[in-house]
Amino acid sequence: MSKARAPHEWNIAPRTETPTIVSMQVAFTPAEIAAIVQPKSTRGTTTEAIRGIAPLEAGGPGDLSFLGNAKYRSQVAATRASVVLLPVDYAGQPGPNQLFLIVDQPSVALAQICARIEQMLWPKPAPGVHPTAFVGPGARIAATATVGPLCVVESGAVVGERSHLQAQVFVGREARIGDDCWLMPGAIVAAECVLKNRVRLQPGVVVGSDGFGYEFVAGRHEKVPQVGVVVLENDVEIGANSTLDRARFSRTVVGEGTKIDNLVQVAHNVIIGRHCILCALVGISGSTVLEDYVIVGGQAGVAGHLTIGRAAKIGGQSAVTHSVKPNEYVVGYNALPSMIEQRIRALRQRLPDLFKRVDAIEAQMDRLKKSSAP
Amino acid sequence: MSKARAPHEWNIAPRTETPTIVSMQVAFTPAEIAAIVQPKSTRGTTTEAIRGIAPLEAGGPGDLSFLGNAKYRSQVAATRASVVLLPVDYAGQPGPNQLFLIVDQPSVALAQICARIEQMLWPKPAPGVHPTAFVGPGARIAATATVGPLCVVESGAVVGERSHLQAQVFVGREARIGDDCWLMPGAIVAAECVLKNRVRLQPGVVVGSDGFGYEFVAGRHEKVPQVGVVVLENDVEIGANSTLDRARFSRTVVGEGTKIDNLVQVAHNVIIGRHCILCALVGISGSTVLEDYVIVGGQAGVAGHLTIGRAAKIGGQSAVTHSVKPNEYVVGYNALPSMIEQRIRALRQRLPDLFKRVDAIEAQMDRLKKSSAP
Amino acid sequence: MSKARAPHEWNIAPRTETPTIVSMQVAFTPAEIAAIVQPKSTRGTTTEAIRGIAPLEAGGPGDLSFLGNAKYRSQVAATRASVVLLPVDYAGQPGPNQLFLIVDQPSVALAQICARIEQMLWPKPAPGVHPTAFVGPGARIAATATVGPLCVVESGAVVGERSHLQAQVFVGREARIGDDCWLMPGAIVAAECVLKNRVRLQPGVVVGSDGFGYEFVAGRHEKVPQVGVVVLENDVEIGANSTLDRARFSRTVVGEGTKIDNLVQVAHNVIIGRHCILCALVGISGSTVLEDYVIVGGQAGVAGHLTIGRAAKIGGQSAVTHSVKPNEYVVGYNALPSMIEQRIRALRQRLPDLFKRVDAIEAQMDRLKKSSAP
Repeated sequence: MSKARAPHEWNIAPRTETPTIVSMQVAFTPAEIAAIVQPKSTRGTTTEAIRGIAPLEAGGPGDLSFLGNAKYRSQVAATRASVVLLPVDYAGQPGPNQLFLIVDQPSVALAQICARIEQMLWPKPAPGVHPTAFVGPGARIAATATVGPLCVVESGAVVGERSHLQAQVFVGREARIGDDCWLMPGAIVAAECVLKNRVRLQPGVVVGSDGFGYEFVAGRHEKVPQVGVVVLENDVEIGANSTLDRARFSRTVVGEGTKIDNLVQVAHNVIIGRHCILCALVGISGSTVLEDYVIVGGQAGVAGHLTIGRAAKIGGQSAVTHSVKPNEYVVGYNALPSMIEQRIRALRQRLPDLFKRVDAIEAQMDRLKKSSAP
Repeated sequence: MSKARAPHEWNIAPRTETPTIVSMQVAFTPAEIAAIVQPKSTRGTTTEAIRGIAPLEAGGPGDLSFLGNAKYRSQVAATRASVVLLPVDYAGQPGPNQLFLIVDQPSVALAQICARIEQMLWPKPAPGVHPTAFVGPGARIAATATVGPLCVVESGAVVGERSHLQAQVFVGREARIGDDCWLMPGAIVAAECVLKNRVRLQPGVVVGSDGFGYEFVAGRHEKVPQVGVVVLENDVEIGANSTLDRARFSRTVVGEGTKIDNLVQVAHNVIIGRHCILCALVGISGSTVLEDYVIVGGQAGVAGHLTIGRAAKIGGQSAVTHSVKPNEYVVGYNALPSMIEQRIRALRQRLPDLFKRVDAIEAQMDRLKKSSAP
Repeated sequence: MSKARAPHEWNIAPRTETPTIVSMQVAFTPAEIAAIVQPKSTRGTTTEAIRGIAPLEAGGPGDLSFLGNAKYRSQVAATRASVVLLPVDYAGQPGPNQLFLIVDQPSVALAQICARIEQMLWPKPAPGVHPTAFVGPGARIAATATVGPLCVVESGAVVGERSHLQAQVFVGREARIGDDCWLMPGAIVAAECVLKNRVRLQPGVVVGSDGFGYEFVAGRHEKVPQVGVVVLENDVEIGANSTLDRARFSRTVVGEGTKIDNLVQVAHNVIIGRHCILCALVGISGSTVLEDYVIVGGQAGVAGHLTIGRAAKIGGQSAVTHSVKPNEYVVGYNALPSMIEQRIRALRQRLPDLFKRVDAIEAQMDRLKKSSAP
């Protein structure tokens, strides 16, 4: 059997890049790059200013490149990039007018540089409430916060220090947005929901839609009012057009540092732990608990009222109908432990052969019975 | 085999609650609670005002609790909640300063109380068109309706009595919104679509996007114009960021009382019957018909041009590629009747064993043939 | 085995129509219809003005009908529609006051007529920027473009000739919208992203949300800044509430003429070729390449860093974890070539029988061994 890519990797960020050279629209001196990444050591020098980031094979003068994945190691010697981020175990020497920066993790160092670029490219808007925004009575907007054009902040809501409601954002009655949050265009935070600090909502996110709860009475589904809230802890990020339902009563929670991709559904009363990863198009059903460090692959579904243990992994497109133990890795439709599921899938491909073998055995058996008959 | 939770239950509302005590932000006297739920009988009395709702084990003075699921029956005797909703077959007696309210269905009674809380917590806005909203020429807004901040109502559209467009809602040209509808922030109703009465759109819903129809001509996909509409009948509720496409011509329909969860796709010309339930991330392909009382589990998909019979159930993540008979319960990828599918899934886990058994039989067969050879 | 509908057809436009007669709200003379479809030949005449479109069996005087699918051929003789679009191999003659228009592809001819109706029904708005819209400094709006109510166009953005931002649309800083684009209500194009010409965004589309990329450092997921863009080439259409992530750096691309349905997720650095079809609820993971003419069925998922060859087809709800060759048709969970997958699925249904057969063989084997024992 070929070695399949683990489905839980779906949609997690690629560590390498397609070979397109990109202008950074800003320039750094090699010394500025070094100041950002704080290398363990350096080899060589360059006089080029850095204006682009490129994969090793595509890099040229003025580009920064990096060895993010060991399989590209052989490309380092040939790269013409001016500055190259390399791991400590890389032994080679730079070419002329080329600087090697030796760091613990080149991809982390690259992320630090990108973060700096992002800071420069995405200028912090001036604080204040845009004249086209509507802020209801009794809402409190921090003096350092920005409420952009055509936003709505309903009465009694709070927006914390340096938080940024970009444009056309909705913050409902009595909702609380902490400090340093960024709510991108069209993001919606319904009444009474809570975002702590440094929460980032991508465009179109809905926080605090009603949970999906009905009682079936006399042939009709009568709505069970959903009077709880959603709480997003510090450093949570939610992807575009994802939806998080408010609790029936009490709270739906996303724990500190958890990152949720696009088009994910989190039902009412779900409790998601800290530092989890939920890939795109995942659905978590009502009242299920994900403990810390859980990873859920793209398009997977988890039934309601389950507990997914700490650091468990759920493969892409899996359907989880039972609770999962800590550190377990489950895969498949009615998900099984990955080792078992992979085994069964392999055998499933041998089913046509198995049917033929049973046919052959039955035929031989018939012959044997006849020949052994008196 | 363990008894799996039926996949169709995914994402349907939990009937029980995580043990977090919630303040109701309002208070009721025990007499007010009794007036809401109209108990068959009562036992005991309490002088506490009710200010919270809590599960049995977490309830204390001032809390309302309830026995919603028989498996928690043993917790009733120990609960310290001041008021407890109980079924008629519960025989125990209340403690001191405790009131038991005996009702037909405690969870329905709880829903009635929550509905009252919701009414109190979500104040009806004052009627009128907010000065920041834009209403096109010829649009007709009922005098009792509310059009909130930064909404758009295009020309010729109609908004009925007491309907509430909360904020940043879009209602397109010639669309018609009936009475007592609630369109939450960012909801979109495109041109000419129709919402009857008491329709509720959660945030970000799109009603009336174009159906996905192209003719493949000379190597290109040429758009087939979608000139039909979407009609949502009375008491329909649509979940956050779900999308319902307008018909190619004629109508896409969602029947009375049907409830659709978040991130659901309903394609053009689909006809959904009355009182159906569609859980999150479901996709219904073009021209398929769901008869009344159909339930579709989370992340299931139904191919186009099929008929799903009255009260049929489709398990979560199933792929339905054939029509389904009334009352049938189908499950799986190329969905089969649930009984058959569950059987096959169980046998699938025994495949490794089956392969070993066949290997052993073949080996024995070889030995038998040799030993019986002359 | 019954012949299953190919899953890749899910959610692709139906070619036939439910039997509801629809008023076109406009009228055409038979001569005007003929001028639009340019028939190869005609049979008969009618004096009726055409005011509706109807299926063959439902058509009456004043209706246009068509034979779009050979299985309805027998209905042509009985239809009372005044004008009927028919293929060249249809031999029958019209009734009294009835006109047959013989065309190469009746469904294409119908599409041409619908396109004309659409042009008439959806009036082009007057050019200009609505007074309630906000346009940032340095944004350039073509004189023939329309920026509707409550739109935001940030600084430095460009909107091309005749493009239409309908209402509540967001176009971010330095983004570029080409000519003849239509951005429907609530569509979002984030900073620096590029739409070429004739691009159509359905309501709620998000172009340019951040890619989902984190480095796991010291027990936390640290964000990898996503500083690339999204580029949509000419004639791309994106369905309601779909999301397309900007690249880590460089570009996420959707090629010319590709059509994407509702609630689809396209991750960062994905490159989609020309004239592809992606049905609803599909997820394409990071850095994967789809070559031209690829078709992806509804709810299918494709893992990251793969290449899907030209004109390959992926069945609905399939999980693709390996690259796919040009023209290949793959289906299933860990998708296999369709022929193999269909075979295995059929055998899977015979598993209960196979287990019984092996039980019987083992029993016989035991008897044979005993009888052959000395």
